[in-house]
Amino acid sequence: MAPNSPRAGAFGPLAAQLLERVRAQHPLVHHITNLVVMNDTANATLALGALPVMAHAREEVAEMVGAAGSLLLNPGTLAPEWVEAMLLAGRRANELDVPIVYDPVGVGATAYRNATAERLLGELTIAVIRGNSGEIGALAGAGGLVKGVESVEGVADPIAVASGLAKERGTVVAITGKRDILSDGHRTLGVDNGDAMLTTITGSGCMSTTAIAIFCAVERDYLTAAAAALACYGLAAEVAARGAAGPGSFRASLLDALYRLTPAEVASGARVVELG
Amino acid sequence: MAPNSPRAGAFGPLAAQLLERVRAQHPLVHHITNLVVMNDTANATLALGALPVMAHAREEVAEMVGAAGSLLLNPGTLAPEWVEAMLLAGRRANELDVPIVYDPVGVGATAYRNATAERLLGELTIAVIRGNSGEIGALAGAGGLVKGVESVEGVADPIAVASGLAKERGTVVAITGKRDILSDGHRTLGVDNGDAMLTTITGSGCMSTTAIAIFCAVERDYLTAAAAALACYGLAAEVAARGAAGPGSFRASLLDALYRLTPAEVASGARVVELG
Amino acid sequence: MAPNSPRAGAFGPLAAQLLERVRAQHPLVHHITNLVVMNDTANATLALGALPVMAHAREEVAEMVGAAGSLLLNPGTLAPEWVEAMLLAGRRANELDVPIVYDPVGVGATAYRNATAERLLGELTIAVIRGNSGEIGALAGAGGLVKGVESVEGVADPIAVASGLAKERGTVVAITGKRDILSDGHRTLGVDNGDAMLTTITGSGCMSTTAIAIFCAVERDYLTAAAAALACYGLAAEVAARGAAGPGSFRASLLDALYRLTPAEVASGARVVELG
Repeated sequence: MAPNSPRAGAFGPLAAQLLERVRAQHPLVHHITNLVVMNDTANATLALGALPVMAHAREEVAEMVGAAGSLLLNPGTLAPEWVEAMLLAGRRANELDVPIVYDPVGVGATAYRNATAERLLGELTIAVIRGNSGEIGALAGAGGLVKGVESVEGVADPIAVASGLAKERGTVVAITGKRDILSDGHRTLGVDNGDAMLTTITGSGCMSTTAIAIFCAVERDYLTAAAAALACYGLAAEVAARGAAGPGSFRASLLDALYRLTPAEVASGARVVELG
Repeated sequence: MAPNSPRAGAFGPLAAQLLERVRAQHPLVHHITNLVVMNDTANATLALGALPVMAHAREEVAEMVGAAGSLLLNPGTLAPEWVEAMLLAGRRANELDVPIVYDPVGVGATAYRNATAERLLGELTIAVIRGNSGEIGALAGAGGLVKGVESVEGVADPIAVASGLAKERGTVVAITGKRDILSDGHRTLGVDNGDAMLTTITGSGCMSTTAIAIFCAVERDYLTAAAAALACYGLAAEVAARGAAGPGSFRASLLDALYRLTPAEVASGARVVELG
Repeated sequence: MAPNSPRAGAFGPLAAQLLERVRAQHPLVHHITNLVVMNDTANATLALGALPVMAHAREEVAEMVGAAGSLLLNPGTLAPEWVEAMLLAGRRANELDVPIVYDPVGVGATAYRNATAERLLGELTIAVIRGNSGEIGALAGAGGLVKGVESVEGVADPIAVASGLAKERGTVVAITGKRDILSDGHRTLGVDNGDAMLTTITGSGCMSTTAIAIFCAVERDYLTAAAAALACYGLAAEVAARGAAGPGSFRASLLDALYRLTPAEVASGARVVELG
């Protein structure tokens, strides 16, 4: 056991249980997400055992979210009417106690993305925020540089930044990277599953957010849910990377691996460490 | 020959002829479809031998449909301006006698989807409606439960529902599932090709609608066209499922199989039965 | 050496150098592109070693393009607000001397596409226009027939058309096909890399435009940049076609091959000929 993971052994079976719950309950995850990754995130949702619905019309989002186990907001290709739809769906989700998972794609890159992030965070209660180091740094005002939608410079102390932003916003914060850092402001976890091939495809971060939204639909401890989701997703990426000849075959294999992932593999393979 | 398929043997060669016609004529299929599946349905169109065009601007849809062999309307990620575009394109298609194939994705899930379905069905003459059991049940007022865009509870008597809705609306109705049920209100067919792997990817229903639209562009008997399309699509799915390790590899193999499908395979492999 | 390629041997090492530059600099390519190919072109961008950003909100495009090495405009699924965004981003790109690469998808198919092309060409300085023979013929008023977004009839003399349009518009023109023809109005090149499997998938033309935009971000001689990009892209297609069982596996393999393409392979494999 790694020196900084006193309870690591306990997490695998817990994550496995949550995966079993997803496969038994098939929760509906309402995505209002970006145009680039919709197909990938819908397929990732199905592969993990949940049901996706992508719906963004202001005329129906409040009704649609009423049937959902969680709501995912990803303004990666934002536009004003989509932001309004996110707010409408988000307010209804808050009323119904449907957890909202928020992926602040490209925040820090433009003033419009920053203003949108402020609106979403200001008007909605968010269960989990998931971003790369540059995005979370931008949200936290802690440095970090975003070029387009890529983190080109991360934050210096991700544990402090995740924990601080979680406390400030009353949410769980997940910074994904080589080691994923998650905090609810009180407890901080690290997830060491994953593979560098994830950085070679578009939407890999967005799919990890989808995994988090799925697990938040079956578990109200959102820190645990998010860590279990990232462990499962990272494990599938490890399997997929083994036979991949490049990003195209990796992408197909990632869906295969998510679909074939078993609770037993998760119980033994999840690498989650306590960081504070 | 199965007891309920007195003319089953005759259908394979007919379906094979229609596939040959598609490959010879390369009809253009104008899609106004949802944001999740656009890439998949465009690729499926090409793989079967037809040409896709995705165009939704109200400024051009009436002109674009004038060059098309059929028009596909799929409001899976509907929004008001897209519905208007569907109506504009649809009215022009009706004037030009270009067949319209309609996929009522997620109808039953929200009032907005129901109202949109009523508008499309009320204002346009539709050649074929293709949906899952829950969607067709919702359209027919015959029960069926839709969660997001998934049918979670089908109709009790799909033959009666398909036949009844076809008569009521003066169209062909196709309910896809383990056995596809198709009716024009007078004659009802069952198609037994397909594979359960289709349920593991997003857009598999949408791609089956695309196949129907392609075949309707080369054959004016829309019941025959739709059954031939579903037999071809289902056959390709059977081939694709054989080597697939999961949904990611299945999805790639499905396009390969659609592309490689031969009229001879269709002639011998189509499993179409007369049901009334 | 082919009789019409007196300097062909020199081009491979030059193209290889540009690929090395892409891999070293990771330029950001701002895409305002169509809904069908966004995922494919984002993945192709990453596979070649650059960074994609897809952003179309009028609220942010001018700011986003300020961080980009090039701007790609592809109105394949155009709508009024997207055209406005293209103009806003394009004007800012011109001010900042960020090269614009323009893909006139489906021009010639509708009056709206023609009018949009005229606006973009009239209001913006374009570095490279890339289209199929029918599209470039339509732009040049030189014949060519477009059905949907497919060229069903090419121009009779592509060298004269490319060269003439390049002179008229003060840009580089690339007509892709079995032999790609590129001209800046003074010098004309042919690129013989590629594979017929490219015609079996949607977005293959759009991805070639993405390759051009990437190379234009690292080389100011846009004719050289575009030819190098098409040679690299075509080489990857040749590799991908070898093991492909159809369009689904080809599409995955194309991303693999773009990712694995080495400067040494480009130096020896680029088939670029001087045509005038």
